[in-house]
Amino acid sequence: MKRAVNVERCFEKFNDTFSPKIVAELNGQHVKLARLEGDKVPWHTHDEQDELFFVFDGTLDVEQRESTVTLHPGEFYVVPRGTEHRVVPHGHVKLMLFEPAGIEHTGKVRAEITLDRCDWLDT
Amino acid sequence: MKRAVNVERCFEKFNDTFSPKIVAELNGQHVKLARLEGDKVPWHTHDEQDELFFVFDGTLDVEQRESTVTLHPGEFYVVPRGTEHRVVPHGHVKLMLFEPAGIEHTGKVRAEITLDRCDWLDT
Repeated sequence: MKRAVNVERCFEKFNDTFSPKIVAELNGQHVKLARLEGDKVPWHTHDEQDELFFVFDGTLDVEQRESTVTLHPGEFYVVPRGTEHRVVPHGHVKLMLFEPAGIEHTGKVRAEITLDRCDWLDT
Repeated sequence: MKRAVNVERCFEKFNDTFSPKIVAELNGQHVKLARLEGDKVPWHTHDEQDELFFVFDGTLDVEQRESTVTLHPGEFYVVPRGTEHRVVPHGHVKLMLFEPAGIEHTGKVRAEITLDRCDWLDT
């Protein structure tokens, strides 16, 4: 990658929801972009990985069992490892994730949206 | 941290330039925000750390010896470890960094802007 990655242009390249696309790798971490719409993410936990959610468009509730953090555009939150959580989009949400490479996006839970792997986006 | 971090409100909390503020830690990485203005960053290298630059405001040239990547708002770039580089802001730049905790922001080079450590911002 020897050029800038333009986030908005990346989002123009895919329309599927709940299917994070890898747009960068650094220090064993992946940067991913995702579109979310509808209440489809199951409660799940990442035992060993912290997960950052950064919202570009829409509103996202990051639900944890004892509290909910609501993210608006330009806001982010880190779910600490070991914390059961799920995310609930309001409207169509455009999101950036920062998390370790190889993370299972619904943890050990299998759900309709569960993917075996994430693909790279041709940025 | 049990609430959203609003990037724009974070930037309202500091005005000093070339002094990245830590706003989150995850998986051994730091998320930092910085303001840059003026041509002050020396050429330097991080031998073991990849470094991501995400621009919110202004224009930033990420210079490497054989190429320059220009970043506009909403764009990012990863400088791979071992790559000599410097960043040159055009105008006043607001920037987010993703990089390993403990990185020396000008590598092994000592310059006017070199800091011994980065502080956390009270987000």
